[in-house]
Formats: sequence, C-alpha cells, structure tokens
Amino acid sequence: MNYQTIIDKIHLEIKPLLSQGKVASYIPALARISPEKFGMAVCTVRGEVFSCGDAEELFSIQSISKVFTLAMVMDRMGDALWERVGREASGNPFNSLVQLEVENGRPRNPFINAGALVVTDCIILENHDTLNDLRNFVRKCANNAGIDFDTEVAASEKATGHRNAALANFLKSYGNLANEVEKVLDVYFHQCSLALSCTDLARAFLFLAHSGADPVNGQIICGPRQTKRINSLMQTCGLYDECGEFAYRVGLPGKSGVGGGIVAVMPGELAIAVWSPGLNQAGNSLAGMKALELFTTYTKRSIF
Amino acid sequence: MNYQTIIDKIHLEIKPLLSQGKVASYIPALARISPEKFGMAVCTVRGEVFSCGDAEELFSIQSISKVFTLAMVMDRMGDALWERVGREASGNPFNSLVQLEVENGRPRNPFINAGALVVTDCIILENHDTLNDLRNFVRKCANNAGIDFDTEVAASEKATGHRNAALANFLKSYGNLANEVEKVLDVYFHQCSLALSCTDLARAFLFLAHSGADPVNGQIICGPRQTKRINSLMQTCGLYDECGEFAYRVGLPGKSGVGGGIVAVMPGELAIAVWSPGLNQAGNSLAGMKALELFTTYTKRSIF
Amino acid sequence: MNYQTIIDKIHLEIKPLLSQGKVASYIPALARISPEKFGMAVCTVRGEVFSCGDAEELFSIQSISKVFTLAMVMDRMGDALWERVGREASGNPFNSLVQLEVENGRPRNPFINAGALVVTDCIILENHDTLNDLRNFVRKCANNAGIDFDTEVAASEKATGHRNAALANFLKSYGNLANEVEKVLDVYFHQCSLALSCTDLARAFLFLAHSGADPVNGQIICGPRQTKRINSLMQTCGLYDECGEFAYRVGLPGKSGVGGGIVAVMPGELAIAVWSPGLNQAGNSLAGMKALELFTTYTKRSIF
Amino acid sequence: MNYQTIIDKIHLEIKPLLSQGKVASYIPALARISPEKFGMAVCTVRGEVFSCGDAEELFSIQSISKVFTLAMVMDRMGDALWERVGREASGNPFNSLVQLEVENGRPRNPFINAGALVVTDCIILENHDTLNDLRNFVRKCANNAGIDFDTEVAASEKATGHRNAALANFLKSYGNLANEVEKVLDVYFHQCSLALSCTDLARAFLFLAHSGADPVNGQIICGPRQTKRINSLMQTCGLYDECGEFAYRVGLPGKSGVGGGIVAVMPGELAIAVWSPGLNQAGNSLAGMKALELFTTYTKRSIF
Repeated sequence: MNYQTIIDKIHLEIKPLLSQGKVASYIPALARISPEKFGMAVCTVRGEVFSCGDAEELFSIQSISKVFTLAMVMDRMGDALWERVGREASGNPFNSLVQLEVENGRPRNPFINAGALVVTDCIILENHDTLNDLRNFVRKCANNAGIDFDTEVAASEKATGHRNAALANFLKSYGNLANEVEKVLDVYFHQCSLALSCTDLARAFLFLAHSGADPVNGQIICGPRQTKRINSLMQTCGLYDECGEFAYRVGLPGKSGVGGGIVAVMPGELAIAVWSPGLNQAGNSLAGMKALELFTTYTKRSIF
Repeated sequence: MNYQTIIDKIHLEIKPLLSQGKVASYIPALARISPEKFGMAVCTVRGEVFSCGDAEELFSIQSISKVFTLAMVMDRMGDALWERVGREASGNPFNSLVQLEVENGRPRNPFINAGALVVTDCIILENHDTLNDLRNFVRKCANNAGIDFDTEVAASEKATGHRNAALANFLKSYGNLANEVEKVLDVYFHQCSLALSCTDLARAFLFLAHSGADPVNGQIICGPRQTKRINSLMQTCGLYDECGEFAYRVGLPGKSGVGGGIVAVMPGELAIAVWSPGLNQAGNSLAGMKALELFTTYTKRSIF
Repeated sequence: MNYQTIIDKIHLEIKPLLSQGKVASYIPALARISPEKFGMAVCTVRGEVFSCGDAEELFSIQSISKVFTLAMVMDRMGDALWERVGREASGNPFNSLVQLEVENGRPRNPFINAGALVVTDCIILENHDTLNDLRNFVRKCANNAGIDFDTEVAASEKATGHRNAALANFLKSYGNLANEVEKVLDVYFHQCSLALSCTDLARAFLFLAHSGADPVNGQIICGPRQTKRINSLMQTCGLYDECGEFAYRVGLPGKSGVGGGIVAVMPGELAIAVWSPGLNQAGNSLAGMKALELFTTYTKRSIF
Repeated sequence: MNYQTIIDKIHLEIKPLLSQGKVASYIPALARISPEKFGMAVCTVRGEVFSCGDAEELFSIQSISKVFTLAMVMDRMGDALWERVGREASGNPFNSLVQLEVENGRPRNPFINAGALVVTDCIILENHDTLNDLRNFVRKCANNAGIDFDTEVAASEKATGHRNAALANFLKSYGNLANEVEKVLDVYFHQCSLALSCTDLARAFLFLAHSGADPVNGQIICGPRQTKRINSLMQTCGLYDECGEFAYRVGLPGKSGVGGGIVAVMPGELAIAVWSPGLNQAGNSLAGMKALELFTTYTKRSIF
C-alpha cells in the first residue's frame, strides 16, 4: 500500500470516533469548531505530499507551537538554554507547580507550559521583532508565506489565561523570566494561535525528519544535534500525560495541541500531521491518536 | 566496522571515565566492587555474541530485574495489570510519594520502586514457588541454567531497605498489595540480587529485540504486543530521572540498575549490556551511559 | 451554675447529636461501640470531680496517648527532642508525607502520627521496660492503678496499621528512628489501645492545669516549662485538621482521639474529658466538640 | 510593676538583640530602615496608653493589614466568606501552592497570602471606594485620622510582587477572585503599605480585646462572634511558620508583618504592639518576639 491508500483507509476507519472526543471549550474560538472535522497529511523527505479529509483547513496549533519556538532558540542559544529549563518528563500535571517550587523555578522541560514560557522569554531576548520573526520562522519551515496568527484566538486566550499568567509570574519571582510578564504572555498567546493546516504542519516538521535541513529546498533550519534533541524531547514529553501511551501505540516522536492537532516525525522518512478537534481525557485528539496508531501499524514503522 | 571492533574501541575510549563515577555504598556487597570494572556485550538476533572487558563477571542487576518481573506478569495478567499500575513517566524522584498519595496508591509505572513492588506482588499471586519460578524465567531468557540470586546482597538489602518497606506498607494501606508486606519485600530484594554477567544480560534481553521470541532457540517468552509495551516503557521510564537524556544520547529503549548495569534493545537487531559500577548523580552508570552513546553513534543506529 | 449543673445541662442538649457522627470502623473493636454512648467528667485543681453519663466507662484513648508519651519524653530529654521533631502545625493531612520528605524525615509536630512515632522511639530509648513504664506513668497521672492496655485493640491495630508502618519505615530510612520499626510500632499500637474512662482522663490531665504538678497529691509529673509547651502544642496541633475550629469554638488546649474522646485543659482551673464515639468528617467526636463548646460558653471561660 | 515599668525594662533587655535580625530587603523602602529601631506600646481597655522607644515612629504594617481587611469583611459577609477561604493552619510555606491546587483554589486561611488576596477581593466587592473605605476603617480603629498609605512602598511592592501576582492569577483561574487581578493586587499592595506607629497599632487592635467594641469611645467595630473568630485565627495562623513557637513563648493571639511589627491581644485587658525591623529566619521580628515573650513572663499573663 502507498501512503495515500493508507491514509484514505484510516480516514474511513476513524469516522466512528469523531463523535467521541470533546472539543476544547475554554475559549469561544475553539469551542465552535465542529467535532466532525478530520484531516491528515504526510510529507516525505523525497518531497511527496499525501493528504485526505480536511487537510487544507486551518486550525489553531496551540502547544505544537512550542516545537517551533524551541527550534528557534536552540539554534541560537545552544546549551545556555538548559540552565533555565530541564529535559526530563514532568510526571502528571498535578506536580507541575510543586516541581517548579521544589526545583527553584526551573521547569522540567520546554513542553510543559512553564518551560514553554521560558523558551518564549528566550526568543524575545534573541529577536528584534519577535512576533514577526516567529511568524517568518514558521512560514519558512512550512514553505508557506500565508501562515499567520489568529488574533481572535490570541485575544481570547489572553482574557482567560490566568493559569499561564500565574506560571509566568511565578517564573518571574524566581528570576527565570528576563522580560516583563505581559510581554512574554503576549508572545506566548500569539504563538499558540498560529493557524496552520495539516499539510502546512507536516511540511513544517519535515526538517525534523531530515537532521534539521529542509529536504525539498535544502534550507538549514536547525543543526543535527539540535534536531536529535528536539525529537527525543518530543518522544519523552510531547503528549502531555500520554507520552508513554503514545510511545507504545504510535512509537514516534510527536507533539499535540489542545486545538486537536498532532504531528509526528519518522526520522529519515517523513512527517505526518493529523487534526481532529475532539479530545480525550488527557487533552489529546482522540481520533488523531488512533489515526497515527493505525498509520504506524499499517506501515509497520513503529520504533519498537 | 563490525560490532567487536566497535566495542573494543569504546572500551579504550571510556577508560578515563571509570574513576569519575561513584559506586553505590548503601550495602556492603555493592560498595566493595572496584570502580575500574567495565564490561560490554552485544547479542544479535542472528545469534552472534560480541564482548569485551569484564563481560563475563557477575554483578547485581538490581532494578534491571524489574523488566523480568514485568515480562512474567504481562504474559499472564494482560490488561488487568494496568488497573494497579500506570504506564507514564513519574517526573523526578521527589514526587513519587506525593503522586502515590494523589493517585490513591496506584504507582505511575512498573519501573519506579512502588510500581515494581506491585508487579512483584502479582508474580507472587501468579506463581506457586515464586523465587524458583522467577529464577527459572531469567535462566530461560538468558539461556543459562547457572544464574542465581546473591543471597548476601538480598539479605543486606532487606536490612537497610526501609524506604522500600515504607512504600510497600503504603501500597498495602491503599489495598494495592494482595500479599503480606514481608513476603513481597522478600521476593523484591531477591530479584534485585540476581547476579548476571553482561553476556547473560544481553542474551536475556534478546527476546525484546525479536517481538518476544528467543531468536536463537525459538522459544516464546512474551507476546509481540507485550514486547512492544515493555520496550516503550523502557524508553519513557527506564533510566530513573535521565530518560530524556538517555533518549537523546543513546536513543534506544533501556533499563539501568544501581549495581552499574545498563541494558538496551535495538528492535530487530540486537540487545546490548554494559556494566561499570561508578554511578553519576542520577544513579546511572556513568561510563555505561557514555559507552552506549558511543555505540549508537558509531553504528549510526539512534532512532532519532 | 456549678459544674455539675452545667454538664448535666450539656448532656441533655447534645442528645440529638449522638446519632449524627460516624463511629470509626477500621478495627472491629472500635466499630462495635454504640454511637449513643456519651460521658463527660471535670476534675478541678481543688480536687473536685464532676461527671455525667457514661463517664466511668472505659474507651480507647488512641491519639490522646500522644500527650502522655510526650510528657514522659520531655521530662527526660529536654530540648534534644526538638532536633527530631518540630513544633508547628502541619496543615492538612494530605501534606504529611510530602512534608516529611521535604523536611528530611523530621515530622512537623509530636501529634501527627509521624511525630508521635518519633516520640515513642524516644520513650523506648529512655525506659527499660517501656510498656510497663508507660502504663505506670498513665496510672500515676490518673491516680488509678487499674488502667491497662486493651490488647485486643492493640492487636487489631497492628494487623491493619499499614499506614503507620509506612511512616515508621520512612522515618527509619531517614535515620529518625533508633529502634527497630517493629518494636516502635508495637509500643505505639499499645499506647493507642490504653483504656481510660472520662473520669480517668480528666484526672490524668489535671497536672497540665497545674504547671506540671498533680494538685491533689502534689506529685511532680512534668516541669512548668514542659507543661506550657505541651499545652501550647495541644492548642495549635491537638485536633487534627480542626485546630482552628476548636480554638474558635472551645478556646482551650485539647487533644482528641479517633476512639471518640477529647480532653481539654483550662490552665489554673481544671481538666475536662468528654467521650462520644460518633466522629465528624475531621475525625473528631461530633458531640464531644459541641459539649466542650457549650462548656466554655456556659462557663464563659474561652481564652478569646 | 506597672506596664510602663515593664516595657521600659524590656526595652533595656532586648537592646543586644537589635543587631541580630535581618531587615527585609526585597523592596528599597523597607531595606533602608535602621535595624536599631525599637518601639513598644500598650493600650488597655481602661484607656491607658504606655509606650517606649520609637513607639511613635511610622512603619509599614505589611501582613498585619490582613487583620483589618478580615474584620471589614466579616462584619458584612458573615459565613459566606468561609466558602472561599478556610480557617485552619497551612503548615509550612512550601505547601501553600500545593494546598491551593489540591484544595481547588480555596486557601487554607485568611492570613496566608492567597487567603488574604481573597479577603481583599471581598472588600472590593463590598465597598464603593475601596482604598478610601479601607483607610477610613483603619483610621477609625486607631482613632487617628492621619493614618495613610505609603505610596512609595505600595509602588515598590507592585514592581516586585510577582509571587503575589502568581497567587492572584492562580486564584482567578479557579474562579476564586471576582475582580480583575490587577485591581485586587493594587488594593493588596496598598493595604500592606499602611503606615502606623506602635501606639496606633495597639490602639487599633483594642477592639479585639473588648469583644469588638472600642472600649474608649464605645464604637462597634465588629460583632463579638467575629472578634472571637479573628482572635482564634491569629492564635493558630498569625505568625507565619512560628505560630506554635509564638503560642508557647508568648501565649497570646497575635499577627506579625515583614516590616518588623507584631501586635498581640490579651482579651479583656489590652492590646500590645512592638516594632523592630530585624527579622528572624521565619520572617518575624526577632527582638519583637522576645519583647512580647518577656511581657507575658513579667505580667504572668500567658494563657497556658
């Protein structure tokens, strides 16, 4: 079977699951998305693109943006970053604040919210026009100059983001934010609001399957060591409290967002993005998890 | 380069590191091992064996035994096990007791001590003559009828194992131990005392590189689903608080023990064991981590 | 009104409450006590005794015993005790284990279970025949040579006391128990099983209302500084998670037990004991709390 | 000895301690106060005033202000307040955030910062011109129309108060703040900046020694039940992590602030305020603690 046949087959199979997840409701812009939406796209290092369903529809990538900011920062800061944020899994969500306190304000990894805020603080330090530079970076990764923030989503998140504001202030009290809290939160809420399609997202993650270089146009996004680090962090910390489950069922490094997107990387081969807004209890796309599991089952490419 | 050339080369390279680790001192039997010891062994699914240094010397496998008990249990209990123990990383050691309390006595995964005690409780339930059955299982995996417990080590651990006794009693208070606390601890301290060589250990883990079947004699140790689960658990939870670091530097599922052993699996290819008693701050073999990192670098086989 | 009139009045008023509490059910010996039982006794420093209801019936004093062991220890150890246990409230029960971990095995105060186990460890160190010496101490305080352990209760607690066993092992792992865990638990479960009547208990606490000396026979039980310390500890830590509520409603230093007893001290005046086995959600005697509240209301003796 | 003789004697005795404490340094306005300052004032329910040292010098009352806001709120809200904040001690500072998380955003008591922020949110709800009404309330309690905020201190606290901002946002995320975070913090930082002298402070707390009524001019500040509640809360939660120590050494309900003030109440008799900016490790005035201990020793008025 080629990839197109496989994803079409998956598309059919996951249909009954679309009604089972629960769309994120904490901001209006996310709550009104239909749970019936489903898209999937595969981009290979040979430049092929396969897609099905709503693969061209834009959605809010939310936490998936943490991978882009991390890639931007690692490229420039090198190991200095790891003095401010750790590289290990954090255990269940409950512990995040305790850990932050016990570990004196150094978040466990860049993919929990506290760690992502530190990374965002870093990109503000390293860039002159942060929002613009960030958008350009994502456009470059995805090879699509039309990608943009969804300012309505960003504004909604700001209005309800008290928990992130608590984390940012807490980090600031430990001296682990250089910029003003408001500035960091503004960039953070914008990055979460980035609107990409499945095709954009798979394309944008392709450099992670190719040691940091865009396999199509040859552009260097990130060094090979940085790429390896990002992939291993996605493997151990990319799926909230379901990293173990994702490692078992899918067996690829990946990152999810509360908007219903999940993107995964098969190093040396391809990047794959799936979108379905209905979430499971852990906050990951319910149908998306299944779709990726079926993909590695059908392609027999799980790493275990 | 073939595997023998590679491990010989690694053996030379890691020599300066041997003096840098710190041998576990909490029981006399471990404390008196020379930090200069170093062994490494590779067993491939084609039946080849490569080794160097002290690869034939017996050492205490300690927490590596948790993989054997898990394999014994998964084979028999199936999904019922997961009602009593989770499958996700636990974050840093600090949180273990809090998590246990918050999650009502269900440990986060089978590789933290609390989870391993639950697994040990299960093998007692599932076997008539537990210690004998456990020893036979490990002998079968390693294809070596001479493998045995080190009763001196087991006795030492019992005498000083108050923290494990605390965990066991805590689990019992939550109704998550069926057997008497003393019985569970006795089996647990015995399993930790199992003495294997690097060659034994690599051989014993070979079924995990071959979907659960011994590739040499064809014996079925575990089903393919169970094997995949064990490997993914090792990937996300096998190296204490350095799973992320191990995923990045080595990029293979693995399990370490405080006796200085680490074993890793390259699915479809081989199992590799390394032993060097000097530990780093996270309690993993300092030279062993480096040796495995060099191995995946030289063989270009990291999964990322 | 004299004290007899007051307690008779209270006895009548609390009747409707007797059916509302919940008798402790974790050991059979406690579970079969009738929730209708109610007794109250007042002993004044002038040697008067007033009582009503089931004031002569023996009940299991449970955690109230922690005051006796503390008094025994303070008399002999002085300030050395406070290196091993703190003197501040512990917050809600949830935190006890976390705190123990964060504070390196030094319990917050002698009235949480972990702290009481440390105190029990101390009385074993300081006495030749601990159980006998402890019993004699309580007999001396209560001026009643018939007081004894209830060995059935002690045995039941041992059989189900896994949480206390967890705490004791945890303390041992931090080096904060000098004796064997089993020995400490044995004494602890015995002290909890001490059977006293309300009259015994009020009489036994009278020295705390009289700067450490028995006001009737002049015997010195404890120094004045120690007495002040015990009273202030009861004030801030004596009623589990209802110390604030007790301070407000009753306004006296006091100590409760899961057997349904509560004893309180009005320094310079009297000691008062109440017993009613039905507990409220915090584990304190529901009718007992109300009875003591009415007592300080009617006598206008609250400290605030 | 009369009170004047006693406080003069204490003034002499504590002199050597003045150099031992550490002045709070987190905001410039506090850091530049001389550690040699010491003042003490006693106001009795009979209208007498005794003072010594720098008793007329204004200082920042900081956390002592939590008693004023609580009194304002209890007068109007009654028991509805306790749905939003608890009434029990919180254990050591470490636990505050964990507890907040475990207890779903309901702080343990009104004297930890999280609880005080909830109380401040309430006074904003209950008053039209909060800052003005708050100032007037304190002026009325102290019978001094000159009392005011120190706006320099308030501004400094705002600029560095990231931890309080974290708490406020955290409370907001749990729905336990009705007003905007910025509004609550603004009032909170103002209340902390209130500048009173020892004489003002002792005078202002006199109603708590007289069942809620000003004994001099007869004005009702608070009902008797509310007064009893405030006193019992001060007794169990008023001195940060030294409530047990304060109960033992001083034996009176009291409240301290990081500006070096401590105020205590002897119900039915007097209120006493002491100020010395050098703090001990728990954040309480080092010489102030000793001065109050000596006061209850010399007057023989400890409650135990």
